[in-house]
Amino acid sequence: MSAASKGRLIGVGTGPGDPELLTVKAVKALGEADVLAYFAKEGRRGNGRTIVDGLIREGMPELPLYYPVTTEIHHEHGDYKSQITDFYNRSAERIAAELEAGRTVAILSEGDPMFYGSYMHLHIRLAHRFPTEVIPGITAMSGCWSMAGLPIVQGDDVLSVLPGIMDEAELVRRLTDTQAAVIMKVGRNLPKIRRALEAAGKLDQAVYVERGTMKNAGMVKLADKQDDAAPYFSLVLVAGWKVKPEERAPGLFLLPDASEAAE
Amino acid sequence: MSAASKGRLIGVGTGPGDPELLTVKAVKALGEADVLAYFAKEGRRGNGRTIVDGLIREGMPELPLYYPVTTEIHHEHGDYKSQITDFYNRSAERIAAELEAGRTVAILSEGDPMFYGSYMHLHIRLAHRFPTEVIPGITAMSGCWSMAGLPIVQGDDVLSVLPGIMDEAELVRRLTDTQAAVIMKVGRNLPKIRRALEAAGKLDQAVYVERGTMKNAGMVKLADKQDDAAPYFSLVLVAGWKVKPEERAPGLFLLPDASEAAE
Repeated sequence: MSAASKGRLIGVGTGPGDPELLTVKAVKALGEADVLAYFAKEGRRGNGRTIVDGLIREGMPELPLYYPVTTEIHHEHGDYKSQITDFYNRSAERIAAELEAGRTVAILSEGDPMFYGSYMHLHIRLAHRFPTEVIPGITAMSGCWSMAGLPIVQGDDVLSVLPGIMDEAELVRRLTDTQAAVIMKVGRNLPKIRRALEAAGKLDQAVYVERGTMKNAGMVKLADKQDDAAPYFSLVLVAGWKVKPEERAPGLFLLPDASEAAE
Repeated sequence: MSAASKGRLIGVGTGPGDPELLTVKAVKALGEADVLAYFAKEGRRGNGRTIVDGLIREGMPELPLYYPVTTEIHHEHGDYKSQITDFYNRSAERIAAELEAGRTVAILSEGDPMFYGSYMHLHIRLAHRFPTEVIPGITAMSGCWSMAGLPIVQGDDVLSVLPGIMDEAELVRRLTDTQAAVIMKVGRNLPKIRRALEAAGKLDQAVYVERGTMKNAGMVKLADKQDDAAPYFSLVLVAGWKVKPEERAPGLFLLPDASEAAE
């Protein structure tokens, strides 16, 4: 079969939550695709699907890919790994069948498809077999630092993107060894992250953001956060900006404060 | 004066080059703003302004902010620093005059405003004085890894964003101490970057991209690049993906090859 009669695979970044943060290219791709595919938990729609709610035509065929229920197996366990690999293999074959039939499939990916996105598991199984395009999306971290009005890196700053699950000592080491940092997937790791930032002397620079750019978004300087409750998809941002604290205008780095200050 | 009668400051990310990679929100902001401001070299329009060429209304008032000519002074020299600080101060006051007069000003920023963007120099001078919104943009690195079809980070990978100007030994150390890396502002640093990647054992994983997402974009595995010519705004991407090289499908990580392979 020639490429011309195959459908196209399109990885579509939905951005961090606000539907207006999709790119023009992503909106066009959703309008042109024959089939809409996305990962979700069984019985749920998934954030990505919810974000594009107002952007897809009525009756567009949907191909939800439901994660196997594996809550009782630890992620490092071999059974979990083989179940999830099997799930990605089967999902890729379902997409492949659509593509072989000449239908173009848009696969939603929250944030940016190539940046910690589940889409990648389909990409590596399909991109060498079918014409493929990846449409970048605004990452969660970018949505968060924009919402906070927080200049994250400038000039020759180093930025380190760190998973919240990291060992405490390792987190301290890496936070000490960088100008700016983004700590991803905070969730239950928040107390440890707080201690690591304190030990690295950077707690005062840290901003906590949850559900960034969504309607129920929240942000606060981490030092001012009174509890340790945090959804899995929350972030901690540490700006590399070198302005001394005493030179900062009040509320400079949290935009809602800045807007209030201007009133 | 109350906030209501002041204009709004909007930092608008233009994305990496392809005009369709602006967000829907950015396009709307350009349509609604009273004045369009942007940094450029004297006598030039600047990349940001070129990207939005088809997106602004005819006759929209423009406020280009021309960098002072400082080519003969080294960037670390005190005269350069005072000239550039003076330039940012004067630019901020020109924008402030528009905002005080009740006009909304969109300031263009290539890529993402808070990610190494010049917009930040105006933001820190104005965001505490006027109602401000920052609209994130697709970063150059995100545009590049999407164009290359390169899954950059997954799972618990650490990503390090490193400036190309960094010392060779320091570059080797940081490349060795990370899963994934993006090296920014490559330009004349390419020979050094190549040596550092070789020393860190990661040259084989490195992809070189220039003018990512633009019409004249180019990309190649760095090990296959025959010369050391590189524009200032080129990137080197090192994926954290842990698939062993022998398990990779041919051409997997450079999309044009993948498309050809599918024909």
